[in-house]
Amino acid sequence: MSVLVVGSVALDSVETPFGKVENVLGGSASYFSIAASLFTDVHVVAAVGNDFPDDHIELLKSKNIDVTGLEKEKNGQTFRWEGKYGYDLGDPDTLGTHLNVLETFDPVIPDEYKDIDYVFLANIDPEVQMKVLDQVNSPKLVACDTMNFWIENKLEELKETLKHIDILIINDSETRELAGEPLITNAARKIMEMGPKTLVCKRGEYGALMFSGDDIFFAPSYPLEEIFDPTGAGDTFAGGFMGYVAGNGSMNPEDFKKGVAYGSVLASFTVEDFSVNRLRNVKQNDLEGRLADFLKLSKI
Amino acid sequence: MSVLVVGSVALDSVETPFGKVENVLGGSASYFSIAASLFTDVHVVAAVGNDFPDDHIELLKSKNIDVTGLEKEKNGQTFRWEGKYGYDLGDPDTLGTHLNVLETFDPVIPDEYKDIDYVFLANIDPEVQMKVLDQVNSPKLVACDTMNFWIENKLEELKETLKHIDILIINDSETRELAGEPLITNAARKIMEMGPKTLVCKRGEYGALMFSGDDIFFAPSYPLEEIFDPTGAGDTFAGGFMGYVAGNGSMNPEDFKKGVAYGSVLASFTVEDFSVNRLRNVKQNDLEGRLADFLKLSKI
Repeated sequence: MSVLVVGSVALDSVETPFGKVENVLGGSASYFSIAASLFTDVHVVAAVGNDFPDDHIELLKSKNIDVTGLEKEKNGQTFRWEGKYGYDLGDPDTLGTHLNVLETFDPVIPDEYKDIDYVFLANIDPEVQMKVLDQVNSPKLVACDTMNFWIENKLEELKETLKHIDILIINDSETRELAGEPLITNAARKIMEMGPKTLVCKRGEYGALMFSGDDIFFAPSYPLEEIFDPTGAGDTFAGGFMGYVAGNGSMNPEDFKKGVAYGSVLASFTVEDFSVNRLRNVKQNDLEGRLADFLKLSKI
Repeated sequence: MSVLVVGSVALDSVETPFGKVENVLGGSASYFSIAASLFTDVHVVAAVGNDFPDDHIELLKSKNIDVTGLEKEKNGQTFRWEGKYGYDLGDPDTLGTHLNVLETFDPVIPDEYKDIDYVFLANIDPEVQMKVLDQVNSPKLVACDTMNFWIENKLEELKETLKHIDILIINDSETRELAGEPLITNAARKIMEMGPKTLVCKRGEYGALMFSGDDIFFAPSYPLEEIFDPTGAGDTFAGGFMGYVAGNGSMNPEDFKKGVAYGSVLASFTVEDFSVNRLRNVKQNDLEGRLADFLKLSKI
């Protein structure tokens, strides 16, 4: 079954200890949709400005990603993010955020997208996430992401959105902040009481932790010897996860585990180069090769 | 086969958000030996002062731990540590460290310990660790721990010790600091070039990572809903690991994985109460029950 993603498509300028790029393809929906396209049909709803290069749109199309819902605003500029990573490749310093068209982003879901069964709401304003849900016709499974900014500034709106979603996919620190609870197991339980039946907690190089009811699944991260640029790893993870789950038409937490594995493996490709440069070239045998290694990592 | 541990036996005063204790049994060798005693015979070499309660010695003896090598210095005081943990139960603030007898600790290995096949050098001065190795007769397997203090102040001595050990069991941050390398896989490779064929990297709630040759093993942590006091978790882990490995007379990295699992599970008991209060009461069925849950955590 296919996936609908609503999120950002951006132009990123990124500096790491290993290099520097300007105005490259970024944004949650870009990473998500390229990752998910390895498993299923993907339909994107996002907004860009008149400065957005056609090449990037062609790239998405070349992956069979449906960009009917990618609105190009004639009088606007694309969302831009500038960041710099230190030697430890931890959280980057944000040097600039220019919301541009994102400031007034009010997604209109095309009629032909309204019956899509799998919906992913990338990290955008929780009120906008809710507006998306109001436009779609009872999807089988809704997952969403969020970030500390919304937890701190739109908590009530976020809690309203959470009542309507099945899976929340967020970072470790966001999990604790949203729950107001330092211990991850307790934080997870509190968040599941807010609505989501499943919580996927992304922990970067420490892997991922998934809570579904009473079940806990602890996934490794794929060990790399070189990390070039961590940007987009989390969105790639979400794309691999949702792509796999939707591609299999699954609603079963047991299948979600394999989704976590695919998400982790795909994120390991993303961080090996700037932008989607490595991710866009992942072939089925690359993916299956790393998945096999990944599954061995935690075998006793 | 039995295990020899050389380390500290201490009196700890600990405060956490959940309570406070004074002068309770602590020290690396205490946690290690109680954990290892669940699997095999343990022989301790350590020093305490004239203030050390006989009850603690009786406790160790009740676990069949051989304390012939636990020297009680008539004119000295026991090593004391005072620490306070914040709400996140992360790294504690050290409020006081009184080395006392540890300051001049010069371990003499009793003759009857010199042929013990499995040796664990807990976190003490690397020169003292080397003196221990000079006294024993070619053990089958030597593991050791260390800490940032020795990495920063006795790096050359530590590197000398590392040439003579098989397994290094240290924290995540110590791994990166010792290697001078932020990426854990590269840090591990550099450390293995210093001597140890196996590196076990303890990551607290994120689990443990073991490197042996080209093999990487990623273990979860046992998810708890209450953590009372994290003190001693790492030493308990090492005790469970070495106890299991020695108890099975193993030299095989495949068996080390199960050692990591037992170490992780035992550490989960230690943090549920102050001092060794929970650990000392772990029964075989408690252990096997949690191990079964633990093994399920990362199953796909």
